Formats: sequence, C-alpha cells, structure tokens
Amino acid sequence: MRLHQATIESDTRGRGMLELTAEVNAIVADAGIEQGLATLFVHHTSASLVVCENADPTVRRDLEAWLARAVPDGDPLFRHTAEGPDDMPAHVRSALTQTSLGVPVRDGRLDLGTWQGLYLYEHRRAPHRRRVSVTVLGS
Amino acid sequence: MRLHQATIESDTRGRGMLELTAEVNAIVADAGIEQGLATLFVHHTSASLVVCENADPTVRRDLEAWLARAVPDGDPLFRHTAEGPDDMPAHVRSALTQTSLGVPVRDGRLDLGTWQGLYLYEHRRAPHRRRVSVTVLGS
Amino acid sequence: MRLHQATIESDTRGRGMLELTAEVNAIVADAGIEQGLATLFVHHTSASLVVCENADPTVRRDLEAWLARAVPDGDPLFRHTAEGPDDMPAHVRSALTQTSLGVPVRDGRLDLGTWQGLYLYEHRRAPHRRRVSVTVLGS
Repeated sequence: MRLHQATIESDTRGRGMLELTAEVNAIVADAGIEQGLATLFVHHTSASLVVCENADPTVRRDLEAWLARAVPDGDPLFRHTAEGPDDMPAHVRSALTQTSLGVPVRDGRLDLGTWQGLYLYEHRRAPHRRRVSVTVLGS
Repeated sequence: MRLHQATIESDTRGRGMLELTAEVNAIVADAGIEQGLATLFVHHTSASLVVCENADPTVRRDLEAWLARAVPDGDPLFRHTAEGPDDMPAHVRSALTQTSLGVPVRDGRLDLGTWQGLYLYEHRRAPHRRRVSVTVLGS
Repeated sequence: MRLHQATIESDTRGRGMLELTAEVNAIVADAGIEQGLATLFVHHTSASLVVCENADPTVRRDLEAWLARAVPDGDPLFRHTAEGPDDMPAHVRSALTQTSLGVPVRDGRLDLGTWQGLYLYEHRRAPHRRRVSVTVLGS
C-alpha cells in the first residue's frame, strides 16, 4: 500500500467552475498507484468542489444560475457583509456543495463516469488563488 | 493494510431512493477487512448518494418533496433542457447531495448509526442503470 | 501504512455548530501518522458536518439563518412530523451539508486552510449526544 500527496494551485477568474480532472489524473499517474482512492480537499470556505457534467457547458451555467437565485448576493438576511455582498453567499454555496471528494482509482487513473468532470468552484466574484490537495492511497 | 474494490450496478425505477446498505456490507465482508474505511462513489451527475433515516419512509418522501419544490422540474431558469424538464434539476440535486461518502468499517462491517441507511438517489424520472464503486481500505 | 480509528462523543446544546478541529487534531496526534488522510463521519441523520470559517462567528449565524429560511421548521410540506416541527428540517439540512469529510494530514496534523474549522452541526432544537468517527490512514 502506498501514499502520495500533492497540491494543485489554481488562479480562478472569479465566480465559476474550473476543471481539475487532468491535473488530478497527472497526480495519480505521478503516484504510480494502479488501484485505490484519490481524495480531493479544497483549503477554503468560499470555494468548493463539485462533480459536474463536462459535455454541455450550459449545465454549469444553469447550476450557477440556480445557486445565484437560491443564495442571492447582497441578501439582507446576511450580517457578515464587511468583505462584500458575495462573501457570505460564497460560504453558503460552499456548505451546500463539497469540501472533499473521494474518487476511485482504477488502471492508474480516476475512474470517473463518461460525463463526469472534477471542478473547483470559485464562489467569489473576484479572482483568487485557490489550493486543492490530492491524497492518493492504494497499490 | 489491504485494499478491495467492487462495483454495484443498480437498476433504478425512476426518481427516488434505493437502499444500498446491504450490498455495501456484502462488499466489506468480501474484502475481509475488519477495520478501516469504505468509500462510495457514484459514476453519474444526475444520480447521487445520501445517508438517510431508514426507519420511516416518509422521511424519504419529505426529502424528495423539499427537493422537488426547491429545484422544480421545467424551471424556466434552465437552458439545458434538450434531455427533458427533469435533467437539469437532476444535476442540481446531485450537486446539493453527495457524489462520494466515506464510512468507517468496524468489526468487519459498516459502522452506521442506528437509523442510518446508505441510499442511491435517482434524480431522473425514467429508470436508469446506475454504477456505484466501493473502495475499502483497512486491515 | 497505518490505520487509527477513534470516536468523538459530543453533547450539543441544541441547534448550532460545535467546533471539532482540536479534538480531531488530538486523534491525528494519537495516531502518530505524519502524512495521510483523516476521514470524519457523523453517525446521525439530523446532525451533520461542515467546514466553515472559524474567524467571524457571524458566518455561522448567517449560514444558520439561510438554512432556517430555506428549510423552515413546521413547513406544511412535511408529513414526518411526529418527532416535532424541527425533525424533518434536520434531515433535509443534513442531506444538504455533509455526513463525511476527508481531510489531508501533513506534518502530523490536519492540513486545513487558515480560516477553516471542522464543525459538527446540530440541526435539532434540543440538545443531543452525537457521535463522530475519525479514521486516519497514512504513514
């Protein structure tokens, strides 16, 4: 049984999703692990992880539209407003999506469904540098 | 330390939850692992995983009712509509629930709370064949 | 590769978040594992886990306010009401947040972002005794 750990640093362009699948697969290849588990973790509370369809970009557009309506920026409900009208919504969106994801590794790569992509979801309007850790366990 | 990986193929009957607890426990038993971690992963973006109360079926009915109201089928907000009025809601519901779950293994079986069941949640109205991977790590 | 498993028993004071970061770090230290993965699992369906900002307490207040509005207690939509008006909302809130979390371990401790805390989220109004398992895998 082996363990490999690496970090992805991503510069986001503001609110929206950034696909990480290729970078995570590169880490799994570096690990030299054929079978096991890759666990992603995002080191932030205003960005998160989602597994989303990677074929039609309107899926990501529509998920964003639903979240923007369900957790509106500038909602008077929120008191944590010092960092801007999109800050508290970013925390709520992060709580509703994922901070960690465990993905099976088979044949030396992520065993994702045909249409699944791993995405970093930036919830702030401004660009940010974000950090995602990948821990690969297996043999 | 050992590793065991297996796949569950489930035929859903359309929207609703299907309990997987017994099948996952059978995989843990096959693994011969007494203590460790079992990680489930669903290979789809319109079906997901939830841990839900398994005693009173109205809990599952009410969770479904809440999701159906919060993410309504045919919502004019959505543009990704070519696959039907329930397709984009299925992606949003999947993002709001779980794609992966890590459950402790103790005494050779899943250490779930008294009322906890592991469920595959089909979010499309039509029946689908769904795939869930289980990766067991431990000793 | 090593495995260490422990349980946290927490007495909640009713609805709200309880930080577990220090207790989980103590379990990681006990494990003597320098690098790997710590996976938390909550053994309930009306309490959950979240990673939340731990600096400004209004973030937790605002997340609670958003959930209380999105999943209102006593909603006539719900039929599972025998255990009180806050019981079914607690199940929905749990499904929308996390039952398990995988956090990387580096240098013998949880590798959390600067502002990240691990929280047990009690969704029932009354105090409850809650159980969280921590499984640490690594070397």
